[in-house]
Amino acid sequence: MSRQVAIVGVGHSKYGVRNDVNIPELAWESIKQALDDAGIEQKDIDYFIVSCAGGWSSEFLPAVVIGEYAGLTPKGTVRVEAACASGSAAIKLAHDMIASGTADIVMAIGIEKMNESPTPTLIECIGRAGNYFWEFESFGLTFPGYYALHATAYMDKYGATEEDLARVAVKNHYYGARNPKAHFQREITLEKALSSRYIAWPLKLYDCCPLSDGSATVILASEEVAKKLTDTPVWIAGIGSASGTSNISRRESYTSLKAAVLAAEQAYKMAGVDRENPVKYIDVAEVHDCFTIAEIMAYEDLGFCKRGEGVKLIRENQTYIGGLIPVNVSGGLKAKGHPIGATGEGMVAELTKQLRQEVERERQAPIKNGVALAHNIGGTGHYGYVIILSLSKPK
Amino acid sequence: MSRQVAIVGVGHSKYGVRNDVNIPELAWESIKQALDDAGIEQKDIDYFIVSCAGGWSSEFLPAVVIGEYAGLTPKGTVRVEAACASGSAAIKLAHDMIASGTADIVMAIGIEKMNESPTPTLIECIGRAGNYFWEFESFGLTFPGYYALHATAYMDKYGATEEDLARVAVKNHYYGARNPKAHFQREITLEKALSSRYIAWPLKLYDCCPLSDGSATVILASEEVAKKLTDTPVWIAGIGSASGTSNISRRESYTSLKAAVLAAEQAYKMAGVDRENPVKYIDVAEVHDCFTIAEIMAYEDLGFCKRGEGVKLIRENQTYIGGLIPVNVSGGLKAKGHPIGATGEGMVAELTKQLRQEVERERQAPIKNGVALAHNIGGTGHYGYVIILSLSKPK
Repeated sequence: MSRQVAIVGVGHSKYGVRNDVNIPELAWESIKQALDDAGIEQKDIDYFIVSCAGGWSSEFLPAVVIGEYAGLTPKGTVRVEAACASGSAAIKLAHDMIASGTADIVMAIGIEKMNESPTPTLIECIGRAGNYFWEFESFGLTFPGYYALHATAYMDKYGATEEDLARVAVKNHYYGARNPKAHFQREITLEKALSSRYIAWPLKLYDCCPLSDGSATVILASEEVAKKLTDTPVWIAGIGSASGTSNISRRESYTSLKAAVLAAEQAYKMAGVDRENPVKYIDVAEVHDCFTIAEIMAYEDLGFCKRGEGVKLIRENQTYIGGLIPVNVSGGLKAKGHPIGATGEGMVAELTKQLRQEVERERQAPIKNGVALAHNIGGTGHYGYVIILSLSKPK
Repeated sequence: MSRQVAIVGVGHSKYGVRNDVNIPELAWESIKQALDDAGIEQKDIDYFIVSCAGGWSSEFLPAVVIGEYAGLTPKGTVRVEAACASGSAAIKLAHDMIASGTADIVMAIGIEKMNESPTPTLIECIGRAGNYFWEFESFGLTFPGYYALHATAYMDKYGATEEDLARVAVKNHYYGARNPKAHFQREITLEKALSSRYIAWPLKLYDCCPLSDGSATVILASEEVAKKLTDTPVWIAGIGSASGTSNISRRESYTSLKAAVLAAEQAYKMAGVDRENPVKYIDVAEVHDCFTIAEIMAYEDLGFCKRGEGVKLIRENQTYIGGLIPVNVSGGLKAKGHPIGATGEGMVAELTKQLRQEVERERQAPIKNGVALAHNIGGTGHYGYVIILSLSKPK
């Protein structure tokens, strides 16, 4: 019924503290790469979607500011926000627009300058990730505080330790050190992670992702156009999307994010992946490790292992290259960085390059089935998006 | 190729200063009406899109806060922003999602509480509608200032007067007085409008729309579902979308908004409406009268008359019911109000009721062809969206 959609071009800026550029300049870094990668020009784009959370941004209308600077005006556009999953939402909407036939080529541009605003505002905005009037204003819950609740629940239920959490940081810094686009490009030791200061017990500094600036762009096209543009289209095989309650006090479980579970179910179904054994299909995954505990929960929410066994995967190095399933071999949010609005496109840009076997050799995952998965969470499981990419055209 | 999409339910809160409700409560007013109108429940919704500009909102993640309160969790969701055209962007994306086959029923919820934030912040944010660093910070251009530039250019080029502008306000207040959902429900005289104080010459207080709180909801469905739910589906016949340069100093013309012209062209083409003579087809229109001059420019940008003759349409009462084409017989942004994120859905909810002949008798437009048009602008022509509705299923 609907048309198949493929990724034909990707771009990814250097993530980090980017005081050297303003918002449109930073966006252009990844837009230019994506246009060159696809071999097209701005006039070929039918519509562009800008994902940017932007509560802290000095530019109130980032989409049109970027559009003018990047030469995309007068194409139709919109800005989208799904907190830290904004970029995946942009890709879903771009996919649907092309599948519907109202557009042939759509550009999803993710951008965030987290370091632009004075810190108190930024921290306040991130603190508001849940319900503002109740949980933030009444109880003072901040973002690390929310994930600390998940960490203590998980540790209590499954016997995980602070050392287990730190292993996630060590892995992701290991790969970040091999990714020239990463915010942090240094390996860390388990001792260093464990001796860092507490932010919200049991989470320490090295359990938290940084506040990054960055942009990433993904160009999607219809089958007909994709076949003209590239010999290696990366198809969108599945997309799932769900939401969680605003108040986390109303969640059923604190060791799982239900929005992620539901989004994965939808994506697996659409892609024809057996949800009982997805690791049989998936060559490489990027998951939302805004805090180390989030990566361990993601293993379980995505069905990479049974409940309570996520901690074993990291203990046994099963999510390194060579293990059961390589996860966040880009460095993840933890080391590659987390410019909120760009994170979704950044994951998909990375996985597109992984599937095409174009990343740095030391962090290239073996590509067997040609299938990759991106897991992107907004807030504390308020938004859940899962995207499955494939080198084979979906049926 | 793609599926046809129809509106099966609409809701519209009272617009005004709504200190009596918070954001989710205000959203629920229109969500409830739309669910009842469609005869469905929350579980029937596949995905919901929340349009909210929200820079001034205390809720940082309005989509999930509304989702929890309205019982829409765990459905997939995203917030979208296209400045004052956010609501139309939500409807376009909802349309494409259904047309693509990834969803059968999508809810577009528009919401804004403009009066929630301290005024200085609000005015600053609205001042930023253009390019922040250049036009706002360097030259101090505010939103009325931008439209005052359009007004002076139009008056200079076509000999329009301040009285002509005031006639738009008089018409829209006339209809607002007959709309129980309107922010302002009082008629005004030409003298009263002309004697109000200057905001940005030549625009006076009565040339400006108010800062409103409000919500509006539109439920869209696939053809198959729509036929089961209603005997009077209102079909999406055409949608167009374009953008303008961020800096208005880079525009070609100040008597027209190019984004609106391009969006109208696309929508007319998709709907099979002759762009040389659209008034032959369209029974009733809602246009973006954030300032009185904007309505006159809209007449011309939409091709309701030739260039320079928009002012004649209002002088000759041709946009009242009984004239050439009734425009803003809801009261428009000027009198019905302008809760930014809700305005697009509010226009489409109004036109759906007009086509179904369900509005108050004194302001019901005659329905001959069963075609209606919504023209929704973001910023000062930064975003342009045009949506054409029809009682006949599109070919």
